[in-house]
Amino acid sequence: MLASTALVLFMTPGLALFYGGMVRSKSVLNMMMMSLSSMGLIGVLWVLYGYSMAFGNDVGGGLLGNPTEAWGLKGLFVGSYSANVADSSYVLSGSIPALAFVGFQATFAIITVALISGAVADRMKFGAWLLFAGIWATIVYFPVAHWVFAFDSSDGSVLGGWIANSLKAIDFAGGTAVHINAGIAALALAIVVGKRRGWPREPMRPHNLTLVMLGAGILWFGWFGFNAGSALGANGTAAFAMVNTIVATCAAMLAWLLVERIRDGKATSLGAASGVVAGLVAITPACASVSPLGAIAVGAITSALCALAVGLKFRFGYDDSLDVVGVHLVGGLAGTILIGFFADPGSPAAVAGLFYGGGVDQLWRQIVGALAVLLYSGILTFVIALIVKAIFGGKIRLSPEEETTGIDETEHAETAYDFSSHRGLAGVSAGTPRPDAATPQAAAHVAAGKES
Amino acid sequence: MLASTALVLFMTPGLALFYGGMVRSKSVLNMMMMSLSSMGLIGVLWVLYGYSMAFGNDVGGGLLGNPTEAWGLKGLFVGSYSANVADSSYVLSGSIPALAFVGFQATFAIITVALISGAVADRMKFGAWLLFAGIWATIVYFPVAHWVFAFDSSDGSVLGGWIANSLKAIDFAGGTAVHINAGIAALALAIVVGKRRGWPREPMRPHNLTLVMLGAGILWFGWFGFNAGSALGANGTAAFAMVNTIVATCAAMLAWLLVERIRDGKATSLGAASGVVAGLVAITPACASVSPLGAIAVGAITSALCALAVGLKFRFGYDDSLDVVGVHLVGGLAGTILIGFFADPGSPAAVAGLFYGGGVDQLWRQIVGALAVLLYSGILTFVIALIVKAIFGGKIRLSPEEETTGIDETEHAETAYDFSSHRGLAGVSAGTPRPDAATPQAAAHVAAGKES
Amino acid sequence: MLASTALVLFMTPGLALFYGGMVRSKSVLNMMMMSLSSMGLIGVLWVLYGYSMAFGNDVGGGLLGNPTEAWGLKGLFVGSYSANVADSSYVLSGSIPALAFVGFQATFAIITVALISGAVADRMKFGAWLLFAGIWATIVYFPVAHWVFAFDSSDGSVLGGWIANSLKAIDFAGGTAVHINAGIAALALAIVVGKRRGWPREPMRPHNLTLVMLGAGILWFGWFGFNAGSALGANGTAAFAMVNTIVATCAAMLAWLLVERIRDGKATSLGAASGVVAGLVAITPACASVSPLGAIAVGAITSALCALAVGLKFRFGYDDSLDVVGVHLVGGLAGTILIGFFADPGSPAAVAGLFYGGGVDQLWRQIVGALAVLLYSGILTFVIALIVKAIFGGKIRLSPEEETTGIDETEHAETAYDFSSHRGLAGVSAGTPRPDAATPQAAAHVAAGKES
Repeated sequence: MLASTALVLFMTPGLALFYGGMVRSKSVLNMMMMSLSSMGLIGVLWVLYGYSMAFGNDVGGGLLGNPTEAWGLKGLFVGSYSANVADSSYVLSGSIPALAFVGFQATFAIITVALISGAVADRMKFGAWLLFAGIWATIVYFPVAHWVFAFDSSDGSVLGGWIANSLKAIDFAGGTAVHINAGIAALALAIVVGKRRGWPREPMRPHNLTLVMLGAGILWFGWFGFNAGSALGANGTAAFAMVNTIVATCAAMLAWLLVERIRDGKATSLGAASGVVAGLVAITPACASVSPLGAIAVGAITSALCALAVGLKFRFGYDDSLDVVGVHLVGGLAGTILIGFFADPGSPAAVAGLFYGGGVDQLWRQIVGALAVLLYSGILTFVIALIVKAIFGGKIRLSPEEETTGIDETEHAETAYDFSSHRGLAGVSAGTPRPDAATPQAAAHVAAGKES
Repeated sequence: MLASTALVLFMTPGLALFYGGMVRSKSVLNMMMMSLSSMGLIGVLWVLYGYSMAFGNDVGGGLLGNPTEAWGLKGLFVGSYSANVADSSYVLSGSIPALAFVGFQATFAIITVALISGAVADRMKFGAWLLFAGIWATIVYFPVAHWVFAFDSSDGSVLGGWIANSLKAIDFAGGTAVHINAGIAALALAIVVGKRRGWPREPMRPHNLTLVMLGAGILWFGWFGFNAGSALGANGTAAFAMVNTIVATCAAMLAWLLVERIRDGKATSLGAASGVVAGLVAITPACASVSPLGAIAVGAITSALCALAVGLKFRFGYDDSLDVVGVHLVGGLAGTILIGFFADPGSPAAVAGLFYGGGVDQLWRQIVGALAVLLYSGILTFVIALIVKAIFGGKIRLSPEEETTGIDETEHAETAYDFSSHRGLAGVSAGTPRPDAATPQAAAHVAAGKES
Repeated sequence: MLASTALVLFMTPGLALFYGGMVRSKSVLNMMMMSLSSMGLIGVLWVLYGYSMAFGNDVGGGLLGNPTEAWGLKGLFVGSYSANVADSSYVLSGSIPALAFVGFQATFAIITVALISGAVADRMKFGAWLLFAGIWATIVYFPVAHWVFAFDSSDGSVLGGWIANSLKAIDFAGGTAVHINAGIAALALAIVVGKRRGWPREPMRPHNLTLVMLGAGILWFGWFGFNAGSALGANGTAAFAMVNTIVATCAAMLAWLLVERIRDGKATSLGAASGVVAGLVAITPACASVSPLGAIAVGAITSALCALAVGLKFRFGYDDSLDVVGVHLVGGLAGTILIGFFADPGSPAAVAGLFYGGGVDQLWRQIVGALAVLLYSGILTFVIALIVKAIFGGKIRLSPEEETTGIDETEHAETAYDFSSHRGLAGVSAGTPRPDAATPQAAAHVAAGKES
């Protein structure tokens, strides 16, 4: 589980590269900074009160944990380093220290917030992003995580919120709490922030597809922690989840390439990378409830749907810049709902879906769970985004001039690349950022120079 | 073992970067796509019938497992998630779930196929590559894996094919099945596909050595899963394999740099990266049978041989573009055969080589095992490549015009880099790919535009 | 622990990218080579005699282990693969094989040496670096590791040197032995080597901030192995260290960005990456002795100090090119000493600092331990650097002409990038390195061409 935590944490830099490679070269640093700063901000909030809101004792109705119960993780580490709060809700079954679970789940909160940023590439003010991220995690993610993720306490009772315990929808590792949640939030935020200048008239090609491929590779690697780690132990369920995570992703990659081949005539590397992510999204909720053949079906069907869905933004006119909606919302919905069809009673979840003789019982549970997260997150995110916009006096995004110059220069006083010292590339400098703040070193240097 | 699986899976993106950095910038995406698509294709085939062919019950003579025994992994996960097929051959000794072994070995099959692609950089049609990869895995890799990799079943008997059980050649983690196999296949395929235009007259320099270094780092990192994971447990043998994997690779890097320093006057970063890979190849079969000092010798000797062997292609005129033959075939042969000299009876394998008083007994077993794989793979790969060429009507590679334009544009309708939005780089756009299919987004956008 | 070893080993390629992205594009390969070659060289020395010097039986006074005790790791792997030397000092408590500890600690030795190289970017002769690295590891690192890292032997006694056992300063994972040690050594070496031409007048901007971000991500990922692995087991202490490693780093990133925002007006990506590393440095010694809230404080305070300290080099005129002093020396000192204030008796270390009612008892121990390493390393490094300079006839660095051309070309006969095959980038070749040694392939090609 500790290894899984490291893997999932690594997913956020992976996402930063995946997203960073897809934007134009004048925006890559800002794109990466939105992911990185999510790590910083959400990591601290998680320790302060997020973990308590998500996994503290229920305050009623399966809707929320008690935010003040383990403020600053107090009570989780004295003595046995596992738990000594009054009741037993912080002790996990088996020998897993509560703090291992804290760390593991922290990485889920971080990546969910970071996923949203792909929808507002190139244009959202960095301060506005940080404010949005902090409010969104508090009001949307922490409660939804409480709804969805159940866990066994040391006294054998299953703790967690209403989707896990009352509705009994299956979401092994976050199809609803992570992907539907982030996907619909991305749509709401993109609508409030508005389109990029020139979109969709001007082509906005990925500036560095090697970064995209690297990022996709890191995401796949890290996703093992997501899915296998959610078994909370190196056991048969983890092995089952792992095999499904491999094969669903493989099938999804092939499916996306096939759609491209048929539709466009060529299979692209961006398509392969997108297929990988779509497959990972699809299998996230399903990896312990479908057979390996079922995983192939879930991965391939979802990926094909996503490959078609990324065109929706052009039809409906929202600028979801990096297809968070098309991949995470659509993929999360498909993966969550397909469990209702493909759930195999021989799998660890031991539930039968429609195709395995189980009727529609699990199917409607999956649909209700998915829609509940979709509506809650969609509506609240829209409101939060409007509030943040109001706080910033309506200026939640760059001015047209700033956007043309590029967000890396205007928001971070940097540009990503400078090949000018290469002799053959001598005439090629990477922009002319403000010399007084290009880097901390340069800034200090200028300051020192003024003094001497 | 689950962690090891994640590590080995990560090697294939690492290989994609390692190879991708070494080609020209007009071919990097295709190079990476050959690795990525191997993941997709072989991962699915493995679940369908590959695992059964490699690790199913022997159909006779230690030559092949029964392909239909666990089709789609049926029988490996119902109930106990470990195994309930009629006999006990799918239950591993100890408490390792069979599915964990399935996932671990899947990553071996994937990387072996991906390794071959380095020999046909810049020129092989993508569809032909996929067809070749599928046939090759089925006819060559799955049987050879059966020959080489033994494992303990739950009833204590050792299962596996003739090299492991009859010949008793030592191949801990795949010197024969992975490296000799891929290396000789690379040679056969490169000969059938033919040379790149302009080779060897025109220099074809690596376009991005930072990618090469990154890829080598990921390969080293992932190789721990390869070697330590092959101990099938976090035990003393895994620790032994790990220390040897570190030190052999260190010694190999130094040896390659030394050869360069003496021969060329300068030690290069490409040499360091190549030495790392050569050392990893060398120690793969040997990591549990030689002492740490022996590992230094095996790594250094093999690396020096490889550093000299990469020049052979110029002498014999085959265009093994990224030195798969020079590093994996030569390195695999050296590592496998040197066990016959350096095997230390104090190591986990408990076998004495020639230098440790064991005579030539182990040496001839190593040589026979190595040659068997070399001949089987070499001959069959040549035939498979000719068949694939025939299926494609002789057009297994790009036309001269396409090759000049670049395979990324002609096969994938993409180019890897676009720095044009950088102000200082404004005149520098990365090619002019077909606007209607440059990216899925652009394609969809164009489609949407036509409708409106 | 095996997984941790893989993680920490991966840190050195991560460092190579982190450092490589920060230098100019004409120096990136040399920068990465200094890290990579440290792996090769120190890995071999560690197996030969380094492990014995650091973890062999004490030769007296807690100052050094016996260098010949396990030369070549003899005695550590025969039979049980754990240990059979005469006394029990090579058997770790619990069931950890001694070789697992050997591998884990090897990675610490490697990264410490590699860290130093950031201070002498762009200018130090590669051969001189290698000579320095070998001597420094032998005379400085191996003894200091002996001083600092204690471990439990199989008979229950705690082994290790004077800082761990007599002074009882707390250094969980290397604040003194790794960061203060490397940081002060970097200062001494930078002074002996001298400034880069043009520094500090000319701006020397990072040439590729995506590499820097990627490197920082890998470092964070790998650091889990550093800190959680130092618990020598997947237990409550490891979970505790892991949560602290997450949250201190998050807080440190935010603190650095805040300092930049206030001082320069903009928060930069280089600042975020630097904050990540500063936070990791800070929590390294402290991760098992402060509470999660204490970790937030330690991370934030240290990061703010480092953000200010990177300007010192301009004031005092030493060219610590990549801020090894500002981040590792200052961060290591802050993290080590802040334990004296923030140590929480409820943590695994069970020690009370000044703010938790423990008085100054632990504080002075921390200060003495930090100063001892600082003085020992600083003085000896200065002497070693002067000796290496003398051995090289005073020419420890490039000539002015070579430095202008770029160290990649002059020391390694390579350049990092070549985008010339991109159609849109056709006029843009990456330098014109000597054609006869640009790559091993090219060299061999030229050689072959001459013969035909």
